[in-house]
Amino acid sequence: MKQSLNKLFNPKSIAVVGASHDEKKLGNIVLKNIVESGFKGKIYPLNPEVKEVRGLKTYSAYAELPAPPDVAVVAVPAALVLRLLPAIAERGTRNLVIFSAGFKEAGGDGVSLDKELVELAQKYQLNILGPNCLGFVNNRLPINATFGNVVKNSGNLRFISQSGAIATSAFDWSAYTGLGFSDFITLGNKTIIKENDVLRYWLEEVPESSWVNRSKLAGGGSSRHRPIGMYLESIEKGTEFLELVKKFSLVDPVFILRPGKSSAAQAATQSHTGAIANDDAVLNEALKQAGAIRVDGLEDFFNVARAFAWEDAPEGPRVAIVSNAGGPAVVATDAAITVGLELAELSPKTEKILAEHLPKAANIHNPIDVLGDALADRYANALQAVLAENSVDAVVVILTPQVMTQIEATAKVIGELSHQTRKPILCSFMGGSAIERGERILNQYRIPSFRYPENALQTLSKMWQWRERQKGPRVAVKVAKLPAKPAKSGESYLKSIKRGAPRQALSSLEAQEFLRKIGFLVPDFIEIMSHDEAGAAAKKFGYPVVIKLSSAAILHKSDVGGVIVNIYNEDQLNKALRIFGKTITQTNLAKNADVSVLLQKQIVGGVDLIVGFKRDPSFGPVLLCGAGGVTAELWGDTALAILPIDKAGAEQVLKKNKIYKLLAGWRGSLPLATTMVYQTMEAISRLAFTYPEIKEMEINPLIVTESKCWAVDGRIILE
Amino acid sequence: MKQSLNKLFNPKSIAVVGASHDEKKLGNIVLKNIVESGFKGKIYPLNPEVKEVRGLKTYSAYAELPAPPDVAVVAVPAALVLRLLPAIAERGTRNLVIFSAGFKEAGGDGVSLDKELVELAQKYQLNILGPNCLGFVNNRLPINATFGNVVKNSGNLRFISQSGAIATSAFDWSAYTGLGFSDFITLGNKTIIKENDVLRYWLEEVPESSWVNRSKLAGGGSSRHRPIGMYLESIEKGTEFLELVKKFSLVDPVFILRPGKSSAAQAATQSHTGAIANDDAVLNEALKQAGAIRVDGLEDFFNVARAFAWEDAPEGPRVAIVSNAGGPAVVATDAAITVGLELAELSPKTEKILAEHLPKAANIHNPIDVLGDALADRYANALQAVLAENSVDAVVVILTPQVMTQIEATAKVIGELSHQTRKPILCSFMGGSAIERGERILNQYRIPSFRYPENALQTLSKMWQWRERQKGPRVAVKVAKLPAKPAKSGESYLKSIKRGAPRQALSSLEAQEFLRKIGFLVPDFIEIMSHDEAGAAAKKFGYPVVIKLSSAAILHKSDVGGVIVNIYNEDQLNKALRIFGKTITQTNLAKNADVSVLLQKQIVGGVDLIVGFKRDPSFGPVLLCGAGGVTAELWGDTALAILPIDKAGAEQVLKKNKIYKLLAGWRGSLPLATTMVYQTMEAISRLAFTYPEIKEMEINPLIVTESKCWAVDGRIILE
Repeated sequence: MKQSLNKLFNPKSIAVVGASHDEKKLGNIVLKNIVESGFKGKIYPLNPEVKEVRGLKTYSAYAELPAPPDVAVVAVPAALVLRLLPAIAERGTRNLVIFSAGFKEAGGDGVSLDKELVELAQKYQLNILGPNCLGFVNNRLPINATFGNVVKNSGNLRFISQSGAIATSAFDWSAYTGLGFSDFITLGNKTIIKENDVLRYWLEEVPESSWVNRSKLAGGGSSRHRPIGMYLESIEKGTEFLELVKKFSLVDPVFILRPGKSSAAQAATQSHTGAIANDDAVLNEALKQAGAIRVDGLEDFFNVARAFAWEDAPEGPRVAIVSNAGGPAVVATDAAITVGLELAELSPKTEKILAEHLPKAANIHNPIDVLGDALADRYANALQAVLAENSVDAVVVILTPQVMTQIEATAKVIGELSHQTRKPILCSFMGGSAIERGERILNQYRIPSFRYPENALQTLSKMWQWRERQKGPRVAVKVAKLPAKPAKSGESYLKSIKRGAPRQALSSLEAQEFLRKIGFLVPDFIEIMSHDEAGAAAKKFGYPVVIKLSSAAILHKSDVGGVIVNIYNEDQLNKALRIFGKTITQTNLAKNADVSVLLQKQIVGGVDLIVGFKRDPSFGPVLLCGAGGVTAELWGDTALAILPIDKAGAEQVLKKNKIYKLLAGWRGSLPLATTMVYQTMEAISRLAFTYPEIKEMEINPLIVTESKCWAVDGRIILE
Repeated sequence: MKQSLNKLFNPKSIAVVGASHDEKKLGNIVLKNIVESGFKGKIYPLNPEVKEVRGLKTYSAYAELPAPPDVAVVAVPAALVLRLLPAIAERGTRNLVIFSAGFKEAGGDGVSLDKELVELAQKYQLNILGPNCLGFVNNRLPINATFGNVVKNSGNLRFISQSGAIATSAFDWSAYTGLGFSDFITLGNKTIIKENDVLRYWLEEVPESSWVNRSKLAGGGSSRHRPIGMYLESIEKGTEFLELVKKFSLVDPVFILRPGKSSAAQAATQSHTGAIANDDAVLNEALKQAGAIRVDGLEDFFNVARAFAWEDAPEGPRVAIVSNAGGPAVVATDAAITVGLELAELSPKTEKILAEHLPKAANIHNPIDVLGDALADRYANALQAVLAENSVDAVVVILTPQVMTQIEATAKVIGELSHQTRKPILCSFMGGSAIERGERILNQYRIPSFRYPENALQTLSKMWQWRERQKGPRVAVKVAKLPAKPAKSGESYLKSIKRGAPRQALSSLEAQEFLRKIGFLVPDFIEIMSHDEAGAAAKKFGYPVVIKLSSAAILHKSDVGGVIVNIYNEDQLNKALRIFGKTITQTNLAKNADVSVLLQKQIVGGVDLIVGFKRDPSFGPVLLCGAGGVTAELWGDTALAILPIDKAGAEQVLKKNKIYKLLAGWRGSLPLATTMVYQTMEAISRLAFTYPEIKEMEINPLIVTESKCWAVDGRIILE
């Protein structure tokens, strides 16, 4: 897909294949939508059976068209689409919107229809939106080439939706609240055009001049953002997607709904890293690194859309709450803390102003209670005071419909004040019927209002999340040039292993050997063949020691009793070796040729970490680090990062873990060798790119002491 | 408050003190509300300045009333309330509803007015609702004695709200959705009548006959529940509250909104137990043990209210989703998993029925996709099939307004089918304006519908949570008779300590001595005075050993470097003692008379737990157990229980912790001595009741090995 999408989304002429008289047919609806949307180009309805539809002359065959339309909208059954397609392409139309269902998504015959479609698209170099999509809207042109019921509300929002049904509901929601958008593009099956193509089109092909000037949008009315909302069930070419999203989110809010928790329950993986870094967790981290916001459901999606469209994101997390009742103010305060916002601390000056304007019984501390008998002017005074306060980044206004409450007048004063500020104002007019009139006025002023105060705060927190990510440092710092393989000996060692019997993983002995060869600090270890050898080695290393069973067939040694720690003397050592003897017999391990026993110096004290990477099919290598040892999965105290990362990135990632506190000097302990941990993380990041033959690997435990960082054990899975 | 509330909430006559012509005055509004609610008793308006209000003869003084009214509603300024009160009481009225604000909640003079009010209430034995309340509604009588705008919707819901504003919004929401209630009681300042009094009134004084027969309510229409919803900002007499709630929640759903996270940030406490078991966490656990549901905000509160009022709670967590679009079905599936529900697995028989009735392209596996062109009959067929399926406990129906969608007809078929089943059906008609008509029909059929599918699943999960708690075993099992103090020597030991200098806490040495005396297994320890003594003791105990600094002035030894572990030989011991020497000098500890050094045998291996208790001002002694050691607060892997508990309860509580997996035999390890942990927990529970002089205590770490459970260190705070 290197072709321009400019003509597709900004056509000068459009054909509707399957235009119909029947008002329930898609071909009729889309024609009506195109006409009513004020499209200024040529429209060619096609239908061999009628002379005209909606007053427009129809054509019976694509070849008859007087000129090749920029776009053909196809609203005929799937099988017919493929029959008509060559004629469309041969007449010179390169851009198609296919509504028809019955392709890949239907299974069975549909799958082969899909293949044919791909072949034809390649043959004729076609841009195809869909199939199984709802079309698109471009309010900047304008054109509404969907079969949805779209109220023409122009605005600054851009949407991409993989699901037509969610677009349908979005249109209805927009009509209800007066929410406007500039682009709404539904992707359907994503057979040819995918999310990345649309993002690239917006980035590279939409001229700045097609937008209303940002600075003119300041104050009330729209926000200065051009937010992008996406509903995606899958993300293809993840790395490119992140690069694109990163570019947008530095300037504008990008928020994404991608359900995925249900698919998180995956097949058992071979490493802790694989188990912890499931698809959903990786996506979360990837979006975070790209500066985008992941929303939690459809309510959140539409709330966030409206807020970003109408209000600038706050510059900080400090919120002031103005309410005419104590209870809802308490609920809102609770919500603010739950979602990670802060209650602004008002200055004495502001509190003095509030005290002057509010009755004695009012609460002049944040959350501000203007009392149940507050009229619109009291709200105005309080709101003006908190908006002027430096320590306030955003305001949430709560109104409960009490006896004296001036619902409409209050909405109006809030609306007027919103013109004088760039701080976001979100409202919660609480109730059902009584507050509807006020809500309508707020919508006219483009102030988002929510029936429940906690939704206002949840939404505000998402706005702040975006701003924080936009301002803050990004975790992943691209390493400009990937360094050479850290040690040649590691490569040749892996090769020598691969020349042996084919296998999926290295044994513990091999993994430790490999880690040592490529430069990690591994505690002294030796393969032992007898009690005497063990005794001698233990004496040489110094007690305490550990013994481990090693075999490529055992990936989780602890599970089979394959690790015995805390051996303090020869007696204990002999006892431990006898236990291993039994384990080998009982578990039938002896049949594995490579089974061996390994004795290692035990590292006493220190903190156990895990550091590893896995390869995500969409986003490439992903690093995992956090609390390690046998309890790594139990605590789940781990953080992820899309690789590569440098040392600064490593530091940011490690600090996300609770266990970082232990490294930094917990409760009177000295700080541990964290710099060495960052080096280890960076080295693992390098490994991921220099050893493509490694599918997954982890050092666990990586024991960090005051002066060292020991790679005590490793697990290496081969491609 | 031993008096009956029956007359207050079921009056035969009622006086309105402060009845007014002014339609904006509360005294006018409440009079109007009483009259219009269809109250059949006598109404006496009082106002010395007018002859009649709303066609009713007014009286100028309470003493003039022809008979003593059962209830007086007082709508005059706070100061006047107190002046009028003696006359009201002396005329024989014992029940008052006071709207007036300006008491305790206003601070200043209000506080002393409040005191006077309490004195008068005691003197005349008055039941007072409020002050600063909105009154009450009893739709079973009927009477609406509030100044709110209440639409008369009778139903099975009961509400208690501390906040009048939240009641106001609730009335508006109820009007909007047609939600009905039987009782709505606002508490205001709770000066005299508190939540427990209302609960006791419902429990003991409302005859079964005043309710519509539960069995008649089966099927469509109302649920068979009589749900209780409470908005409380504080809970007084927590233990009694739990006992009452427990009684209700065994039969009916009880759901509670109590904001409290904001107050969770508390003053520094002296123990881990105190820090972890903050007010909010204790309340959470207390409500769980009482079988009640805690809701997450106002939206959740009203969603749950409507669902319990209209649908029976599901008998299991397995949900079927029927949707006319794939996208929202995926979002709903995600939400189901997030909130802890399960997707029902349909039987081959049901899938066969679905295959017969749905088009080929439809998805007959749960979540079921009836496709975008589904008319009402297709929904009906699918819904019928899943309702008949044994593995389905609840159904969520999703509708997106597509071209062909029959919004109203679909609402009707869902409504009709709901009459034939006791399984809950929750809907999500998605969108804004287009689906409103459908929503209205669903409201008429009393089927809860939500604009966003995730809200339907969140609500369903709360319903299931209640059912699960109702069916399941309760954690806290009352120990019928509290046992005698575990060991007399412990008591005398504490007494001897208290005879010394007054102090807040025991030193480590004393705590360990106390724990040993009352029967816990404490590893050998000794106070040492010299390097020689230390060497001798270490030899006797056997290495490795630990040394600890002990002083009542050090509660967190680790923080000051007061614990050195892993001492394997005499050299290391001497080095460690030298470090202590420095620590004592540097930290100025030497000035504490009781500072001493303690040498203790180190327990090698095992799992570190923490077990302790604190006293909650509302709910009494609370047990904490979970992952211990210096990292107890870091992991926060702890569970709480309101005490007392027995061994079975202890087991349930311990199993809530992640660390339980380590005890049960993690990754090839043998199971540890968990039974001894339960015994320890039970012993701590006993301690809480037999040693009132102990304010907080904890054993940390409690090291559990395969055969023992060692109380390695303790912290004991005195009252």
